[in-house]
Formats: sequence, C-alpha cells, structure tokens
Amino acid sequence: LHPRTELSRESIFAQMSRLAAEHGAINLGQGFPSNPPPPFLLEAARRAIGTVDQYTPPIGLPQLREAVAEDLGVSPQEVIITAGGTEALHALAEALYGPGDEVVLLEPYFDVYIPQARMAGAEPVMVPMRLTDRWEVDLSALEQAITPRTKALLLTNPYNPTGSVLSRTEAEQIVALARRHDLWIISDEVYDELYFAEPPISLRELAPERVFTVGSAGKRLEATGWRIGWILTPPGLAPQVAGMRQWSSFCSAAPLQAAVAEALPVARREGFYEALRQGYKARRDLLESGLKSLGLKTFSPAGTYFLTALLPGLEAEALVREAKVAAIPGSAFYIQNPAPKGLFRFAFCKTEAEIEQALERLEGYL
Amino acid sequence: LHPRTELSRESIFAQMSRLAAEHGAINLGQGFPSNPPPPFLLEAARRAIGTVDQYTPPIGLPQLREAVAEDLGVSPQEVIITAGGTEALHALAEALYGPGDEVVLLEPYFDVYIPQARMAGAEPVMVPMRLTDRWEVDLSALEQAITPRTKALLLTNPYNPTGSVLSRTEAEQIVALARRHDLWIISDEVYDELYFAEPPISLRELAPERVFTVGSAGKRLEATGWRIGWILTPPGLAPQVAGMRQWSSFCSAAPLQAAVAEALPVARREGFYEALRQGYKARRDLLESGLKSLGLKTFSPAGTYFLTALLPGLEAEALVREAKVAAIPGSAFYIQNPAPKGLFRFAFCKTEAEIEQALERLEGYL
Ligand SMILES: CSCCC(=O)C(=O)O
Ligand SMILES: CSCCC(=O)C(=O)O
Repeated sequence: LHPRTELSRESIFAQMSRLAAEHGAINLGQGFPSNPPPPFLLEAARRAIGTVDQYTPPIGLPQLREAVAEDLGVSPQEVIITAGGTEALHALAEALYGPGDEVVLLEPYFDVYIPQARMAGAEPVMVPMRLTDRWEVDLSALEQAITPRTKALLLTNPYNPTGSVLSRTEAEQIVALARRHDLWIISDEVYDELYFAEPPISLRELAPERVFTVGSAGKRLEATGWRIGWILTPPGLAPQVAGMRQWSSFCSAAPLQAAVAEALPVARREGFYEALRQGYKARRDLLESGLKSLGLKTFSPAGTYFLTALLPGLEAEALVREAKVAAIPGSAFYIQNPAPKGLFRFAFCKTEAEIEQALERLEGYL
Repeated sequence: LHPRTELSRESIFAQMSRLAAEHGAINLGQGFPSNPPPPFLLEAARRAIGTVDQYTPPIGLPQLREAVAEDLGVSPQEVIITAGGTEALHALAEALYGPGDEVVLLEPYFDVYIPQARMAGAEPVMVPMRLTDRWEVDLSALEQAITPRTKALLLTNPYNPTGSVLSRTEAEQIVALARRHDLWIISDEVYDELYFAEPPISLRELAPERVFTVGSAGKRLEATGWRIGWILTPPGLAPQVAGMRQWSSFCSAAPLQAAVAEALPVARREGFYEALRQGYKARRDLLESGLKSLGLKTFSPAGTYFLTALLPGLEAEALVREAKVAAIPGSAFYIQNPAPKGLFRFAFCKTEAEIEQALERLEGYL
C-alpha cells in the first residue's frame, strides 16, 4: 500500500464510539445527537424515496442549491452540495493546495483537517489557541505562522472542540490578515445555528472574494448520518471546486438532498433552530454545573454542542472502561503543540438522562 | 486555485445529461435507470429513515458489511462500504498509488479512473482494446505496458463502455500477469449482476491476495443516486483502505445503508437479478436490432446496460441538439489512443418507449 495509508488510523471519534459501545459507556465523545431528526425532515425523506433516486448533478440537486442559497442569502450559483462537511473540506483541500503549500490552522483542531491537507500534499502549520479562563485566538502568533508558502487559513466558527465563537473584532482582524497576505480562508461553519449568545459572524460576509464557507444539514437538522453538507464559494469558483468532489463521491444521496431542500425553509419558518438552541443551552448548563459541582474547571462554550473541561490525571481509555463515560481526550486535538494537561471534550447533544447518568458515573469514579 | 483543478472539467456523463435536459432529448447517455428501484428497497428505506440517522462507522454499518459479505461469499472483515463505486475507486487510488507510480488500464476507459489516478499523483498508462467484430483485450500489449513503476492494473468486468465480459481464459491470463509482475488488481465489478450469457468471473476468486473488488448497490438495485457501494479487500487490508474514505465522505448515508442491508438478501432470494437481466436483455435486443435496421454497425454487449455502435460522421452535440437523442461519444473514453471513428455508447437502462422513440428520432435524423 502507499505510505499515505499512514493517515488511515481510525479517527478518534470513530474509536471512542466503538469503545463506548464495547464497554456499555455513555457516549459523550463523538458529536451526534441522541434525539431523532425533526418530523418535517423525516416525512420529506419518506416522500423523496422512490421519486428522487438517481444521480443528481455533482454540484447538487438544483432545488437544494436554491434552498441553501435562500437560507444563507447567497446566489445558488455559489453553492455546492457535498457528502457532509467532511467531503466539503476534502474538496476544498484538493482545490486549494498541493505539495509545497502550507495551510495555517489553530490548535486544538478538528481531526479531519490534517489528513486532508496531507492527502492534498500540503503541510499544516498549527498555531495554538491561548487558554486562560477562556479560549482565545492569538492573532500575532497567527500572523507569524504565515510564510510565502501559505495558501489558506482554515478556521472553525463556532469552534469545535472549544465551543468558542469569534467576536466581530477577531473576525475582522483575521480577514484583514488574510487580505494582507492574500490568503484564501476556509471557514468551517457547520455549527452556524448552534450558539448561545450573539449569532456568529459568517466570515464570508466580510470577504466574499476569498472565503469558502462549509455548512452541514446533518448538524443543523440532527441527521449527521445523512451526509448532506455544502460549500459556499467566492463568485465564479463553484464549478472548479465541484469538479473535485465529482471524483470522490460524484454526488450526495439524491433522496436525502431532496428532503433537505424541503426542510430548510420549514426549519427557518417554524423556529426550529431557536428551539434547538434552547434545548442545547439547557443541556450545556446541566453538564457544566454538574462538572463544576464535581470541582472541575470548565470552559463555557458560546456555541457548538461541545464543552471542554480539565480532568487532571485522568485518561480517556480508563474513563470509558472504568467510569463508563466516553469523552474525547484533549491530546487528540493537538499534533504540533502540547495539549493543556487534563483537557477533555464532552458532547452535550445527548439526552438529559444520559448527561445526568454520565455525571453520576463520573462522581462515583472520581 | 491549485493546478489540480484542471481535472475539474464537467464529467461527460453529467454534461450529456445536462444537454439532454436543455434540449428535450431522450437521454441514452448517462447510465441511470428510468425505472424506479424495487419496492422492497424503497420500503426498507422508508422504515430506516427516523431510526438510523446518525454517523455509522466509516468502514460501514455492521449489518450492511455482513449482508454484502454473505451475498458475495467473503468475510465481513474484508468489506468496506463507500459512497458509491466512485468513492470506492477514489479510496483505492489513494491507498495504492502516488507520485512516480503508474497504473495500467484499458482504453476505452470509464472517465473517473484518470482524474482519480492523477489526484493521487500517479500516471495512468492506457492500453487500447482491439476492436474487430468484437472488443478484445490485447494481452501482450497489456504486458508491454507494465514497467517497474507499475503498481496496479485497473480493470472493469463487465466492461463499461464496451459491454464485454472477460472469458475465464482471459481472466486467468490477466491474473497470471499480475502475479508475474507482483501488481495489485482493482477490479471494477459494479455491473456484476448485469450479464446476458455466462455469469462473469470475479477476479478476486482467482487471486484473493491481490484483487480489490468494487461493487455497487446503486447499479444492482437501480438506485444510482443513493451512493452505496463497496470494496472487497484482500485479507487484512480493509482498515487501511477504509481509513482513506474516512477523510473524503466519512461514511455513507446511514438510512440508505440500513435499507440496502435489508434488500440484498431479498433481491437474491426473490430472483430480482434474474428479472433485471431479462428486462435488460429485451431492451438490449430492441436497441440493437433497431440500430442495425438503420444500417449501423453494433457490438453486442454480453453485460452492463451499455451498447457501442458506429455512427460514422456524426457528432454527439449535434445528435443531442438536432436528433434530440443523447449518447456518449466514443472519444470521451479515450485519452492516449485514437478512438474508433464514429464510436458512440448508448445506455439501454431506459424504458422501451424511450428506446423506441430514440430509434425513431435517429431514423428521422439519418
Ligand atoms: C465525522 S466524526 C466527528 C463528529 C464531530 O463532529 C465531532 O465529534 O467532533
Ligand atoms: C457516475 S456518472 C456515470 C454513470 C455511468 O456509470 C455511466 O454512464 O457510465
């Protein structure tokens, strides 16, 4: 096999879900909801099955491109449908960089970024976030990491795993930096509807000419296994980027594209996202206050369904096996810089009962 | 953008489908069935929607890996589920070759093979098939194309676009060649259930240690837009190859995986494939006798739902625009060697009415 298969190690998320199942642990590891997707999405899918079953254009089913465009206030010409956020990021890596190029990203990072950059032949350059009482972007470190080989900045907003959301000032400074060095920005915004204070700024609004936005129906509509995501491109670039995904999965699952096209306007009109945020805010508070009352240090997330906390001296595999609670070890999010000691990420896209039981098990274990 | 985006040109199949829609042409170009998928598949999918909606393991939903293994007589450990045959081929390209490597394949070739090899950094080396009264593999030309840089042979059986099926002797000779030069074989067998004489030989049976088989639920169950395919690997290699697809689409659409898992044993038990073959044989004969009665030379396919024919002096775009019949021009299947003059590929996975009407239109046009 080609040496590239070194990149084939099992993803930390797949691994922790596997271990959780093996040990009967409560899975606060991988970020997928315990609740089912909303009925309006399921009904749309059941109707699409048997009517939209053959290939769609690789760039996407026309009515889904239109629904995404309408929801996000862009032109349908600038929308590409992908097999989830993962394939969106893969297509962008292939479209934007190659051997000899560098891409700058923050640490802790979401795991697919590194192997995707390496598969495209590029070198990831990691800039650690500052961790004080909260997670902060170190703008001067970000600028220092840029070299003449840098092609792109890869950012996540809201940010997985930290749960942080860029302030308007931070967003403007990052965009100014990209302009100064003439860099592309890949902005992974799959948690765009999951925030607990101000709505996050979409970087594309600040620099439509250089920002590629990644979005996800799976995250928004609680159907992570459906593999429907999208890319918004700068004007004129969609066909070239869609051409890359054409050679990985050709097109996304046709009936599920049709279902998401129907569901996006319903979700917006019926206040689905507000209800989602309310539910997650309650579960975030439940998890956070529970961890605090065990004496643990937590970093309250302003977005996403993840919460980071310090559990010094604990080890993720022991936690699954012995406490029967799965969480993602902070070290999984670091590759060049040292992870903060005892850092863990907990997903709270689970039921209140699961969160409560996990807290009890942790209490017993600690 | 990276120069790799040169590979982003629209696929000939997507292009001809787009032109067919624009010009109200009958689409005998892209290979997708006009008939809907079978009811037992659709019902299984409607049941899975709302119950299997979150991420599956990248290597596949366990019950689908088992169903594929059972159907094909292999171990579930050697099965990887992918987002269609296209992603299976992409993952194999990434797993098997890289810069400096060569992959040998036949011409005419199926379009994704070349950009996928190039995205992985490898050079495709093309060996033309011989076209007399039928399509034949030129074994000595195949052997001459092998160099010390050759990593793999990429074959299709039954063969798209020619419709030919390897004889046992040809299959054994090809496998002996691969053994002699210690090459991997990628055997694209997505049309494995679509044959009109002897069942095709699966190359894996002849050399399980070096053959990767690509299969497709979309082709078998007439749901090309569902994007459920698979790879059978030599023993022990599945995790490393699955690790590659993990970075393109992460996993295949979860509810559709569950539906295919239910449907595969039903299709086998209820004689679905026999009925499928009967239907396609009738439509092949309809198309072939129609083209012949127009005085055209045809090459009768022993498998797939494609038929090649010579329409000398005709041009594919004019055919769509003026005759209002879409077919794939032979030149789209050649990149290094000259295409036989006037070669076209017609898909007969369409209704009898469509085929009859296409024949009438061709008659009027010629
Ligand atoms: C594609 S697996 C990862 C799911 C997820 O987004 C996470 O747990 O961070
Ligand atoms: C993935 S588009 C190609 C469909 C097909 O197999 C063909 O028309 O050859």
